Amino acid sequence: MQGKIITISRQCGSGGHSIGSELAKKLDVPFYDKEIIEMAAKESGFHQEFVEEQGEHMNGSMLFNIAHHVAYAGRGSYKDYQPLQDQLYFTQVKVIKELAEKGPCVIVGRCADYILRDRNDVLNVFIHADMEHKKNRCLERGQFSEENAEDMIRRRDKLRADHYRYYTDEKWGDSTNYHLCMDSSVFGIEKCVSMIENACRGMYPDS
Amino acid sequence: MQGKIITISRQCGSGGHSIGSELAKKLDVPFYDKEIIEMAAKESGFHQEFVEEQGEHMNGSMLFNIAHHVAYAGRGSYKDYQPLQDQLYFTQVKVIKELAEKGPCVIVGRCADYILRDRNDVLNVFIHADMEHKKNRCLERGQFSEENAEDMIRRRDKLRADHYRYYTDEKWGDSTNYHLCMDSSVFGIEKCVSMIENACRGMYPDS
Repeated sequence: MQGKIITISRQCGSGGHSIGSELAKKLDVPFYDKEIIEMAAKESGFHQEFVEEQGEHMNGSMLFNIAHHVAYAGRGSYKDYQPLQDQLYFTQVKVIKELAEKGPCVIVGRCADYILRDRNDVLNVFIHADMEHKKNRCLERGQFSEENAEDMIRRRDKLRADHYRYYTDEKWGDSTNYHLCMDSSVFGIEKCVSMIENACRGMYPDS
Repeated sequence: MQGKIITISRQCGSGGHSIGSELAKKLDVPFYDKEIIEMAAKESGFHQEFVEEQGEHMNGSMLFNIAHHVAYAGRGSYKDYQPLQDQLYFTQVKVIKELAEKGPCVIVGRCADYILRDRNDVLNVFIHADMEHKKNRCLERGQFSEENAEDMIRRRDKLRADHYRYYTDEKWGDSTNYHLCMDSSVFGIEKCVSMIENACRGMYPDS
């Protein structure tokens, strides 16, 4: 276990993105979040907005898949048919594996922990927080309105959990799927970063 | 959040007991594991072996409860009837709340995280490990035989999970039920202790 690559899975509003970004700066390694999406979008030929929307979610895929199925009819045998959602996922798998091959980095979301499960140089982290903190964080960032923030947070996490379950057959947020899980509402962003950094210490050959 | 009281939930063979014990020594606070059972046994009037067996498990309780039900028949109204397993649990709840009132300490297992959920000075930790590490640790300690170690570990964790679900209506090992979860097979016992100690730092008024 080298701990060269850090994957961060996170609940909506938990600050996981900021933690990953700060951590990458401290460790002086690349940080991949929307960058992955952009690369996947380029490779797959999908419109970037579609990829951003569907990259971690299962919602709406049925409609897209049916449309794709209809469009595909008569253009090949049924066994060659692959739903759009799956095409996108497997494109992301390829991109994430290639990024990991390049060297130490921090990757947020997109089942990276599962995708890189056969490597022994990955530290998998899950960040969660209580609803009050998640809601306040989302409101501060103008992400959702006061009226629907809690519903939107629950909905987004439900979509991420469904997506993770569909592609990994594992439960998103179950502690045994990660090396380290922490509650950012108790520790705060800065302390979470230093705790992950501390967890990595001794795992890097040059640390 | 003061972090004065640390509860440690752990998978069988993950080293959670040793981590709790070492942590208590480092923090110079009392460590409660079997001590809780002994106190609960004394208070409840149960035989200590029965309490050790049933303290965290749901198994066998049906037989004991039926026997108790039969023995109870005719000695009071049905609404006064409380299964043995529940009597034991609520005795442990009382003991754990009293211990927490006494001051800083480390408590292992027995739903202490849930029992103390209304306090704001508790840090809840979950320790897990991969099967190879758990098996090796159990074999080194002569806890199980080579032939049945894996089955026994799975069985014991299943019983703990059932017990936790029954009394808390929550999923044992789900990261959101704890402030900090860690994989002891990746970090080792010593590093887990220092990581929890580090997590507490700044949470103690005198640290």
